[in-house]
Amino acid sequence: MTKQLLKSLLVDTPAGSPEGLIVRCLSQRGAISAAQISKLTGLARSTVSTALTGLRRSGVVVESYSVDEGIKGVGRPAATLALNPEAGTCVGIHLSLDEIRVVVADVSHSFIAEKTVTLGLDYPPDRAAKLTKAAIAECYDENSLPVSGLLGVGVSVSGPVSPEGVVQRASIVPTWAGVNIRDVFGPVLQQPIFAANESNCSAIAEMMWGAAVGCEDFVLFKIDLGVGGAIVQQGRLVTGIAGGAGEFGHISIDPAGDLCRCGNRGCLELYASFKRPLEQIERVKGFRVTMDDAMRMAAEGDVGALRMIEDTAEFAGRGLGIIGSIINPPLIIIGGRMALAGDMLLNPLIAAYERHTLIKSRDVTPESRTRIIKGKHTENDSLLGAVGLALSHHGMLK
Amino acid sequence: MTKQLLKSLLVDTPAGSPEGLIVRCLSQRGAISAAQISKLTGLARSTVSTALTGLRRSGVVVESYSVDEGIKGVGRPAATLALNPEAGTCVGIHLSLDEIRVVVADVSHSFIAEKTVTLGLDYPPDRAAKLTKAAIAECYDENSLPVSGLLGVGVSVSGPVSPEGVVQRASIVPTWAGVNIRDVFGPVLQQPIFAANESNCSAIAEMMWGAAVGCEDFVLFKIDLGVGGAIVQQGRLVTGIAGGAGEFGHISIDPAGDLCRCGNRGCLELYASFKRPLEQIERVKGFRVTMDDAMRMAAEGDVGALRMIEDTAEFAGRGLGIIGSIINPPLIIIGGRMALAGDMLLNPLIAAYERHTLIKSRDVTPESRTRIIKGKHTENDSLLGAVGLALSHHGMLK
Repeated sequence: MTKQLLKSLLVDTPAGSPEGLIVRCLSQRGAISAAQISKLTGLARSTVSTALTGLRRSGVVVESYSVDEGIKGVGRPAATLALNPEAGTCVGIHLSLDEIRVVVADVSHSFIAEKTVTLGLDYPPDRAAKLTKAAIAECYDENSLPVSGLLGVGVSVSGPVSPEGVVQRASIVPTWAGVNIRDVFGPVLQQPIFAANESNCSAIAEMMWGAAVGCEDFVLFKIDLGVGGAIVQQGRLVTGIAGGAGEFGHISIDPAGDLCRCGNRGCLELYASFKRPLEQIERVKGFRVTMDDAMRMAAEGDVGALRMIEDTAEFAGRGLGIIGSIINPPLIIIGGRMALAGDMLLNPLIAAYERHTLIKSRDVTPESRTRIIKGKHTENDSLLGAVGLALSHHGMLK
Repeated sequence: MTKQLLKSLLVDTPAGSPEGLIVRCLSQRGAISAAQISKLTGLARSTVSTALTGLRRSGVVVESYSVDEGIKGVGRPAATLALNPEAGTCVGIHLSLDEIRVVVADVSHSFIAEKTVTLGLDYPPDRAAKLTKAAIAECYDENSLPVSGLLGVGVSVSGPVSPEGVVQRASIVPTWAGVNIRDVFGPVLQQPIFAANESNCSAIAEMMWGAAVGCEDFVLFKIDLGVGGAIVQQGRLVTGIAGGAGEFGHISIDPAGDLCRCGNRGCLELYASFKRPLEQIERVKGFRVTMDDAMRMAAEGDVGALRMIEDTAEFAGRGLGIIGSIINPPLIIIGGRMALAGDMLLNPLIAAYERHTLIKSRDVTPESRTRIIKGKHTENDSLLGAVGLALSHHGMLK
């Protein structure tokens, strides 16, 4: 009953009703106070209060007490309101190089169930859709979850996705080029389907539940074995006319450089990802080294591993310096597993950014400076964002 | 009377009244039909019709017949509505290296009067404000214009301007670093003051009355003796946290390259502006050559001048390729005097863009392609945009 009610409030109710506005607001923001709801929705405090009474009575909204991590202070934590985790579920799907990951999450974005579908390289869309459907069914079955509470399906794709849902050729899964995600999953899953590039999903995760909560304008820069990114302006993802916005890994910094998988030369990804540095470390050490190994080695004082992190930071900072001269964002969030290196990465990266970008911190007031910080979600970020995509599509993100 | 009425409608009326909405819409869009007004304001056709009757009776709005350049067709041109040019004036000011230009324009953005105040390098803000005030007074006096009809003053600055109006150090006029434009001109001119970077002003001119009319998302790339730029997203200028967005000339494409006036190395401006190519032509020819000369020489088949235009196009296309991989905009407008070279510049520039950017035209549907076109206002664009800034500040641009 509660599930059907939440679904109808999120999907079917006119956007203008107080109940619809409040539920959509909570689906985007997680746990917030009545005062914040009033501010974010533009509804009068008394209207919010009346609507909340009804929503709490029907079990859609619950009261929760939480101390916000970002607020240091003493005393009783503020009472906040959140969607009832039992009121509905969302599915997040991440399409990567050779496998598909599926999660079922409640509306408070806690993962309830998770499956990985192993497919091998160049898997065809039709097969992927069928196996994904089976994996979702298993998730619901094994956890005795009612499928009727499913609110939507978000799909994270390792490549540019057009605003209409078409995967572009520059994707790392070549068999998906030109394929519309909605056309593939819609008929099979019989649910509302939302799709975005994986880095855009990461940005949604940071915006809804991470390092960018409350921030309407920021840039996400992901450093892992590849480089990805996302731009949020006025609270919305910038997708670009063909879904190619935020493709920071493919900024060409050397037109005479090595060939990149995208078909261009000298792309930033070749220098600012941790792929080549890992190869360098392995060559010197003579054994296989993972990203986790390299970061542990650097933390323990291995000069080679540390130098590789610093070199990656220098190139990432140089690329971000270019992005800074173009967008001059208030906030840059460093994501990807490399962010786990913390200050070993951030300090040289910030120094390189300062050197290469136009506006120098020393020349502007503190409030006009670009802040560069570590992301909160450096693992599972795309899957979490896919869940957020399904929730937020009923609200701020269009 | 009409002037006071327009001023009150633009400045004082609540934004929600039909008359206020229509007048602000016309101040941004120039001459449009009643149907377009209805679409843009969201007002019902009947509400627009009633309000227009009143506005025409009071002389604020007039009917005009014009054939839109963009629409090819035969038959009677459509009746359009515009603000009465006699209903008010705006002042546009452009602060450049060693002089200040002042224009007075009517609300249909026709220039009525123009003055240049010659100042010499490193002119101080106080002196500039006083001389500008005198020049404005002369403009009104000589043309018997009533100062009471002045709706606002827009200031275009050759350098980054923060959202609060502070000129940043990277400006080409060092004496203005850290100066707030509103603080300088506000007390002297006793008028509402709006300020923006000169390329942002050019973008406003293109958006309101040029090549970007009706386009909510585009990039402006100015090629002249320097390189400038602007980004418009969702109908608004992206200023950046410190006013540094759109500074395409200072994308560093070679960290080991020559020193730039901004203090960085290898900035795009050093390669994609026409400053160095002009020096090359002069060196070969042995006499002084202006930009106009060089373009005429190229059009007449001079291989050296043509090569210099092509080389500039190659670097501009490479820089735009980077911007494309970051923003993937639907439209790129080439401004600055170099745009007057037309296809001599655009053809190699488009080829270079295609080579260096991630999303290739051949891989996406025609409607997902980035269009690259020449701007409409390649001269007086900053001044025109300063006028637009004063008008549009009462509407779409915040």
